[in-house]
Amino acid sequence: MTSAADRYARAGVNLAVADSLKVKIGELVESTRGPQVLSNRGGFGGLFDVAALPEKNPVLVASTDGVGTKLKLAVAVGRYRGVGHDIVNHCVNDILVCGARPLFFLDYLGFGRLDPVVAPEVVAGIAEACRVAGCALLGGETAEMPGVYSEGDFDLVGTIVGVVARESILDGRRVRPGQTLLGLPSSGLHTNGYSLARRIVAEAGLSLDEPIAGDARPLAEILLAPHRSYLGELRPLLQEHRVCALAHITGGGFEGNVSRVLPSGVGVDIDAASWTPPPIFALLARLGGVSQAEMHRVFNMGVGMVVIVEESEAARCLAALPGSRVIGHTNADGGVRVRF
Amino acid sequence: MTSAADRYARAGVNLAVADSLKVKIGELVESTRGPQVLSNRGGFGGLFDVAALPEKNPVLVASTDGVGTKLKLAVAVGRYRGVGHDIVNHCVNDILVCGARPLFFLDYLGFGRLDPVVAPEVVAGIAEACRVAGCALLGGETAEMPGVYSEGDFDLVGTIVGVVARESILDGRRVRPGQTLLGLPSSGLHTNGYSLARRIVAEAGLSLDEPIAGDARPLAEILLAPHRSYLGELRPLLQEHRVCALAHITGGGFEGNVSRVLPSGVGVDIDAASWTPPPIFALLARLGGVSQAEMHRVFNMGVGMVVIVEESEAARCLAALPGSRVIGHTNADGGVRVRF
Repeated sequence: MTSAADRYARAGVNLAVADSLKVKIGELVESTRGPQVLSNRGGFGGLFDVAALPEKNPVLVASTDGVGTKLKLAVAVGRYRGVGHDIVNHCVNDILVCGARPLFFLDYLGFGRLDPVVAPEVVAGIAEACRVAGCALLGGETAEMPGVYSEGDFDLVGTIVGVVARESILDGRRVRPGQTLLGLPSSGLHTNGYSLARRIVAEAGLSLDEPIAGDARPLAEILLAPHRSYLGELRPLLQEHRVCALAHITGGGFEGNVSRVLPSGVGVDIDAASWTPPPIFALLARLGGVSQAEMHRVFNMGVGMVVIVEESEAARCLAALPGSRVIGHTNADGGVRVRF
Repeated sequence: MTSAADRYARAGVNLAVADSLKVKIGELVESTRGPQVLSNRGGFGGLFDVAALPEKNPVLVASTDGVGTKLKLAVAVGRYRGVGHDIVNHCVNDILVCGARPLFFLDYLGFGRLDPVVAPEVVAGIAEACRVAGCALLGGETAEMPGVYSEGDFDLVGTIVGVVARESILDGRRVRPGQTLLGLPSSGLHTNGYSLARRIVAEAGLSLDEPIAGDARPLAEILLAPHRSYLGELRPLLQEHRVCALAHITGGGFEGNVSRVLPSGVGVDIDAASWTPPPIFALLARLGGVSQAEMHRVFNMGVGMVVIVEESEAARCLAALPGSRVIGHTNADGGVRVRF
């Protein structure tokens, strides 16, 4: 790994360009870093001081993920900053479901041929989202691998490390029958289902520049809306121990993700009539002839995070979580049942 | 991120295959994990307990990197386990130069179409190298991205997190004129220079199945020899504070990497006649018509790690580091000078 400031120069970018990028990227990265990041002139690794973490019995939570083929859409329309937000926010949510707050993030960008516009735009997006999440962009790598990637395509991988006090780890053990499921709205497809969505859009011959019925934004903007982070609104409720479990709705939908936090014998009923999915989902289902069951397996259907709370806490949590609504309940039957 | 055991099933691998892989991969991954890894049934993140780290004032050191186009060579000959060792050992060395020992590792595998043989082989190699390094394989992700990767190609990204006591961080501040540079032998090209090496091999029409002059192993084996980890032999010397600085010789060679640990005004003289590079380097130079200066910029030339020690410590360190030799000295002139 090289420092963020040096990575473009080392990856063989034209030096005059790299020199100007160095400043911009260096400033952006620097803006994510607090006093816990130690200066590391020349080193390969990024240094993060954990001697004074406020968490009692701190446990690190780490996760690695990619953005998937949403990248191909970003390439198609030449807009790259949003995928930087995507990868960070996706990772932030993935460790948030364990109750963790982010400490630091590292990114990897793989290209066939390094593009001096794309890479800095993506890293700028990453740095912006890291700053919002209070997460240090500790390092990253940009690799040029001729022949491995298709012309113009690239991959983007992020790794996040966060921390949670051992007694505050969320792992489903507080989930019992009779609790309430709240749904938090997604900003769109987030980072799942893009292979299917892109195929439907292409086969239907939809223009990425045109709006769709019920949504005035151009289709490209709808599809590229960055993955939403739920850290800001959920963190206060986590600190007050009001949350029994969280499920980040990614690939696999409710069934694949809510089931992860259900103890043996506990199930959930989700009433899909309790919220209205954004228009893009109905359009994709109609044009692609995709069943509701399949839609719910591939897409988040407008709910990006499920929050399981005690019934007695539901009203207070609804009030604290803008746009949230009751979408179901836990039961003693087991399994994940979605009523369409 | 999904758990290592579930990632293949979730990535859409044939379920019967995935079910059998689950066991094997699950066992391998489990074998890397000590009591600091907390069980995390269902969660997206891997949990690592840092409440009882023995290091005083612990500082985390993190690094992300890829294997580069060595992957294309692995694909060409259908041998995948070694690149798992490569990515782990490369990352281990990258944080070792800060004085850190590994805590945990996460991997990312990106494919055009998931290959049910390749992925488990790579992850098995990763798990093996993690076990040797005392590093928990905490998580990983396997992504299928049709159209992004060329047919049959894939990318492999690793992220390591380690720890060092704040007062033991190696960052070059102990480097002064008159110290001794020791070179530790590399196992071959490690993970750098493969685009050039592959081009030379292809243009010269060399067979990957044949030995080369001075090395009886088939060329494929020479080129795919896994990146060597220097953790085991350097750790005791680090604990005894006998090392002033370390430089992992990757892309950029001595000039690009030793310079990172030189304080202003301190330079090094390296005498390339003090060791004999493995025969593969002379072959590549001759066939490719590559100058010695360029060879030293692209390849490690047989020295994978440079250890800077006090002159008075040199004899003891040489004895403790098998295969090591004195390759140069620090001076008061500044810069990195390699005498061929």
